[in-house]
Amino acid sequence: MKARSASVEVHVAQRRDVETRPIRVGLLGLGTVGAGVFNVLARNGEEIRRRAGRAIEIAAVHRRDLDAARSLVGTTARVEADAMAIVRDPSIEIVVELIGGTDVARQLVLEAIAAGKHVVTANKALLAVHGTEIFEAARARDVMVAFEGAVAGGVPIIKALREGLSANRIEWVAGIINGTTNFILSEMRAKGLDFGVVLKEAQRLGYAEADPTFDIEGIDAAHKATIMSAIAFGVPVQFHKAYVEGIAGLQAADIRYAEQLGYRIKLLGITKRRDDLRAGPGRAAGGIELRVHPTLIPASRLIANVEGAMNAVVVNGDAVGTTLYYGKGAGAEPTASAVVADLVDVTRLHTADPDHRVPHLAFQPGALADTPILPIDEVITAFYLRLRVADEKGVLASLTRILADNDISIDAILQRPGADADGSGGRAEGESPTDLIILTHDTVEGRMRRALAQMQALPTVLAPIVRIRKEDLK
Amino acid sequence: MKARSASVEVHVAQRRDVETRPIRVGLLGLGTVGAGVFNVLARNGEEIRRRAGRAIEIAAVHRRDLDAARSLVGTTARVEADAMAIVRDPSIEIVVELIGGTDVARQLVLEAIAAGKHVVTANKALLAVHGTEIFEAARARDVMVAFEGAVAGGVPIIKALREGLSANRIEWVAGIINGTTNFILSEMRAKGLDFGVVLKEAQRLGYAEADPTFDIEGIDAAHKATIMSAIAFGVPVQFHKAYVEGIAGLQAADIRYAEQLGYRIKLLGITKRRDDLRAGPGRAAGGIELRVHPTLIPASRLIANVEGAMNAVVVNGDAVGTTLYYGKGAGAEPTASAVVADLVDVTRLHTADPDHRVPHLAFQPGALADTPILPIDEVITAFYLRLRVADEKGVLASLTRILADNDISIDAILQRPGADADGSGGRAEGESPTDLIILTHDTVEGRMRRALAQMQALPTVLAPIVRIRKEDLK
Repeated sequence: MKARSASVEVHVAQRRDVETRPIRVGLLGLGTVGAGVFNVLARNGEEIRRRAGRAIEIAAVHRRDLDAARSLVGTTARVEADAMAIVRDPSIEIVVELIGGTDVARQLVLEAIAAGKHVVTANKALLAVHGTEIFEAARARDVMVAFEGAVAGGVPIIKALREGLSANRIEWVAGIINGTTNFILSEMRAKGLDFGVVLKEAQRLGYAEADPTFDIEGIDAAHKATIMSAIAFGVPVQFHKAYVEGIAGLQAADIRYAEQLGYRIKLLGITKRRDDLRAGPGRAAGGIELRVHPTLIPASRLIANVEGAMNAVVVNGDAVGTTLYYGKGAGAEPTASAVVADLVDVTRLHTADPDHRVPHLAFQPGALADTPILPIDEVITAFYLRLRVADEKGVLASLTRILADNDISIDAILQRPGADADGSGGRAEGESPTDLIILTHDTVEGRMRRALAQMQALPTVLAPIVRIRKEDLK
Repeated sequence: MKARSASVEVHVAQRRDVETRPIRVGLLGLGTVGAGVFNVLARNGEEIRRRAGRAIEIAAVHRRDLDAARSLVGTTARVEADAMAIVRDPSIEIVVELIGGTDVARQLVLEAIAAGKHVVTANKALLAVHGTEIFEAARARDVMVAFEGAVAGGVPIIKALREGLSANRIEWVAGIINGTTNFILSEMRAKGLDFGVVLKEAQRLGYAEADPTFDIEGIDAAHKATIMSAIAFGVPVQFHKAYVEGIAGLQAADIRYAEQLGYRIKLLGITKRRDDLRAGPGRAAGGIELRVHPTLIPASRLIANVEGAMNAVVVNGDAVGTTLYYGKGAGAEPTASAVVADLVDVTRLHTADPDHRVPHLAFQPGALADTPILPIDEVITAFYLRLRVADEKGVLASLTRILADNDISIDAILQRPGADADGSGGRAEGESPTDLIILTHDTVEGRMRRALAQMQALPTVLAPIVRIRKEDLK
């Protein structure tokens, strides 16, 4: 434990002399969320002061377009085209980074930390990729980095995981943490349409961006899942080890079949503790699953009924059981709600003993674990399989034999006259194909991969097999 | 701002010398929750230490039955038959009060505060009734009083309201915050049974106590709603001003009719900000609604689908919109999850500047508002009315005239052959009664009270009118 008498003296001096003075904030980025932060602080400033004990003052804002910046903030704050000028301004105590991306944002955040400033950011990509570097720098300088806005917008899920559930051994976290894809899936289900059609509608309505790659490929969700994984299990952020599968390949037929079987399909970010893995050569015991993919969930679960662009995260802890957190996951004011709450937190708590204040990743930096993130082949889930097969004798027998040979047990089988994927029910000539839907019990993914290859090689399997993972989430 | 150099010196000294030492806790009450707290700390102690930066040690426990206490804690903690001996023990830093009730608990908590100890409690009755006195005493001594376990068990709703949503002007909070009554209502709906039958079943299963008054009359929910109201709106706790109506009068017929109209009936604790009220003689502008009663909610709302003994709280803020928090609201380990999280919070944050650390009621003690809690006559809700009427010409006309004369507008009317309340469809002799179900738009309760009296006086109204409040909760 290093001695900190010098910095402590500073805290003490501040407390006695200047504690009723507004805390001074520099705001980098004045886009949708930045404007939201400015507006929320302007509108609720008095109420926030009653909570924080000090006013929170946006002293300077950065935006390239100075005129646009001035038209928003008027004369209440200094306007800077150069973000670094704000970061280096000694009178600024907290820097809010809302620029996005991982390059410039990283530089600015590290520079702000080096200058001894606390940082608030909603930048999930930055933290999922460069979190370790940033949190270490912050620790070395005894400053706080707060990032409630990085996951699930205004829903205080970081705080719940890090503080509210701190008594628990977290078992798993599963969330709808991307509004665009949940909107698309909700529409696909409600209207029976395929992915491409709904995506165009979502773009027209502003629920999906012109380039929707980050959302629909699951990358945005994986950034958020990575952050939650680190907080839940006390491991460093490791985005590069996340398994990511998006929703572009989903077909309306599977959403329909899932419905008939009592399930909904959602894009989930999932992270799970695994204790069934023993230590081996070069490997610690246990493991952590970290993955984003479309998932069948029982329709009776609360999270299965989260529709449109809303977000929800389910957390299971050994003492508390299953809890759920729900709200808007994006948008100017919901995200601003989280950013400003972080400002209040920093205002309230930056005077606490740095050795014991709430650690960035819930666990004290010296107490992180090196539990490995498991490769997808070692992940355990149940599966939904859809096979287009020839209507011949023995087809089912050969399929079930392959599953049995791979130690995969079957939960349910549904047989349907083979409709086309578009749901029109058309048949190919000269064939009488059948759709076989198989639900399996939990199995290791590698086993399923091998079974799928064997099944796919059967001449009676007429089309690429669809496989979607399935979770109980009880 | 008072000078605090003396106490600051103490903090500084502690930080350098003893910060890795376990923090010492005295546990008062070793019943269901107390044993849960002990077990969670024993099981997850190492993980909790990695989070808190210090171990949390139960140094002493109080239970009248010393043998029972010893059989649980063994030799790990001192066992005391006299709670006050723990409260006055100078080596104890945090006192956990899990005795319940408002008399002894109040004395012990005030004494612990006077001795300079931080306090953690899950006692909602104590805080709803004596909160003002307790928080003032804590403030005077610069100690923390934490009470996450007092509302919705392990769901960190206090933290969400107080910290996670601190950027918002909270508009309203509505929650299923009593598991017993939600279990009973869920069973009534699922099985079409009346209250009395299901209550007996709930008692047999252990979901309701032998004397279920506190739960079914809504008093327990009102304690919790009172605490949430204070935190949401920055007013003192005022349990005596809460309006409380339980579920004992609910009939299966109304649950069925509500279902047909697309609603579920839940016992909700509701608190709402009202800005439409101007200042008058002896009265400030605005007001706060604080009430517990059975409520119709649209079946499509997530909270309408919270079944069994689960809890859920919906919070609407001006920036974040509508958010929801869900989980187990009672039981040994869910409540222990909250109590131990509070212990971690105190361990982490008791070194923060007392003038700015998280205030007990979210707002700084000097910044509480005197906004009045409104009498039920001034509350605004929509209504569900069920009237047993004679099947005569002009009945509907006279009813709608009374509503119109009282400025109450009608949303929907449903007419059904008058079934008996027990659902058997039997008819009284010589009559041909009809059930008229009327849904109104929002109206002031006093107006509805007058209209109800006028309708009830009509000779064509054959039975006491059933009226249940209705909320949109969007």
